Amino acid sequence: MSPAYTPPEIAPVDLALAPALQARLDGLAKPPGSLGRLEALALRLGLIQGRLDPKVGRVADYVFAGDHGLNEEGVSAYPSAVTQAMVATFLAGRASVNALARACEVEVRVIDAGVDADLPAHPALLDAKVRRGARNAAREPAVTAAEAIAALEGGARLAREAAADGVDALILGEMGIGNTASAALLMHRLTGAPLADCVGLGAGHTPEGLARKLEVLERAAARTPATAPFEVLCEFAGLEIAMMAGAALGGATARRVVVVDGFISTAAALAAVRLAPAVRDYLVFAHAGAEKGHRRLLAALDAEPLLALDLRLGEGTGGVLAAPLLRAAARLLAETASLEDVLAGRL
Amino acid sequence: MSPAYTPPEIAPVDLALAPALQARLDGLAKPPGSLGRLEALALRLGLIQGRLDPKVGRVADYVFAGDHGLNEEGVSAYPSAVTQAMVATFLAGRASVNALARACEVEVRVIDAGVDADLPAHPALLDAKVRRGARNAAREPAVTAAEAIAALEGGARLAREAAADGVDALILGEMGIGNTASAALLMHRLTGAPLADCVGLGAGHTPEGLARKLEVLERAAARTPATAPFEVLCEFAGLEIAMMAGAALGGATARRVVVVDGFISTAAALAAVRLAPAVRDYLVFAHAGAEKGHRRLLAALDAEPLLALDLRLGEGTGGVLAAPLLRAAARLLAETASLEDVLAGRL
Repeated sequence: MSPAYTPPEIAPVDLALAPALQARLDGLAKPPGSLGRLEALALRLGLIQGRLDPKVGRVADYVFAGDHGLNEEGVSAYPSAVTQAMVATFLAGRASVNALARACEVEVRVIDAGVDADLPAHPALLDAKVRRGARNAAREPAVTAAEAIAALEGGARLAREAAADGVDALILGEMGIGNTASAALLMHRLTGAPLADCVGLGAGHTPEGLARKLEVLERAAARTPATAPFEVLCEFAGLEIAMMAGAALGGATARRVVVVDGFISTAAALAAVRLAPAVRDYLVFAHAGAEKGHRRLLAALDAEPLLALDLRLGEGTGGVLAAPLLRAAARLLAETASLEDVLAGRL
Repeated sequence: MSPAYTPPEIAPVDLALAPALQARLDGLAKPPGSLGRLEALALRLGLIQGRLDPKVGRVADYVFAGDHGLNEEGVSAYPSAVTQAMVATFLAGRASVNALARACEVEVRVIDAGVDADLPAHPALLDAKVRRGARNAAREPAVTAAEAIAALEGGARLAREAAADGVDALILGEMGIGNTASAALLMHRLTGAPLADCVGLGAGHTPEGLARKLEVLERAAARTPATAPFEVLCEFAGLEIAMMAGAALGGATARRVVVVDGFISTAAALAAVRLAPAVRDYLVFAHAGAEKGHRRLLAALDAEPLLALDLRLGEGTGGVLAAPLLRAAARLLAETASLEDVLAGRL
């Protein structure tokens, strides 16, 4: 019999603090509500941290990397070897996400969740490899129950360690050639949306490539009727995606802000929410991406992302660009004078 | 006879650099176009600075402050004295924009363009006062031609000084009770849109307040048929708005990025574009605000703002929140490895 997975206990945020947070926002030296969605974000940060003066200083982008046996079927425009090449690029600080992270003062860490290569050690590389690549989900379950548990628990442990290290907000980033295909299968089974609505161009498909991708995913889906979240992860998830779901759960247990990036990151977040609904309280959605299906996936999570810049890269890039908004929202609550103080000349 | 205004000579950006910038973006180690609108922004920054590796380090929010005689007619929910109180709050570092600016590493400078009070000296206050408040535009022209020229030229000088001081991007922020009313009149005359489409809730009107505001603006508009941009500024502009238009022009002459904030800032930018169309090349639009009319005003400028967070505060807050996106876009171009280098292992 397969091992069972028990998600960590997550305490929902304490909504009793919401009226005090809202009163504080409304009393700031500005017309009430005039900072729009930044105020809603500030309220969320206050609830997550359980304080009227939330603080978002250190933000870290965890780029979970893994390969996909499914890529043998031609679901991506790129070969799996690109995953390893991009990991090397992240570690050298030369990828897009590194440039963006320097601009937005976000730390980048790379996690080997399941890259199909033996990676040389590097100070910025966290080795959490479960196996060299998920299996080909068109033919067999992508990971065993034991492997899925290892990925989920490994992700949760990394998030708790980040929190203990002083990280205030954790971005769920990823790199894995073929992982939009895996995410589309998760979305299909966890939301009930038809596969055709979940499959998009990924990193760069032609229309023919897209048709091929859909055909492969239909074969994978036909293999099993699974809809229970843990079972769906075992059938279809990449190791990096399962580990991201685990990191969301672990981040929430540590009461940290968990920043969801693009389509794949959102699929991982949805899996986490289905495993432990209280994790939803800790999620901040960074952007509405250009990948088809992302907006519908966000709607399934009742999420309103902060940015809409037509990004479709992954790597946590949207989360990185949203990091200054988190810091701004926290400082708005913590540092702005009240209208009462301004009118009384108490500055 | 009134003195005449001659806008500064502005060189359009050199579009000959665009293909090289686009080729560089397309050759980066990521799927072409996968960073969406951040790539378009990077291209714009490269064109403005005339280089393949643009740099956005120092960003400064210039908060132009001024009062409006029009406010005697009840066009705002707030009394004019709030302008001065908010200036004191900016200088004390306790306003919303200060908190946001610390989060986004933006410098805040406050410019007395025409506050209706004698402000005490302060290191962060730039005295460029033309007069104590614009006149009541419902009864007479808001400023004389000589005053409008002083405001335009003062703004241009401040922007050139900022550039000489090493500021890479200048945000056009503002504070002035009643200035959405002034901006609505400018929009009406410069775009031809009916006044009712230009008038919004401002900082916080009731429906009754809004009806009153529209009635006052209709009286002001009925006073004169002016449509030429300089004449329109004289009739309806606040001193801070004219000075913002001048700062846009001066920033462009110094080839600096000029960041446009909300409704009032966009009205000032439109006036600048009508005075000297080449300034448009140097403008980056930070956000689509919640004030009615802002989106239509943006459309008149063919502008696609970066953020949509339902802000309606002014003070340059949207520009401040967009500053990290500018830095990220510049670093994307300047620091990311090419796909060719990644595949060849040249990191």
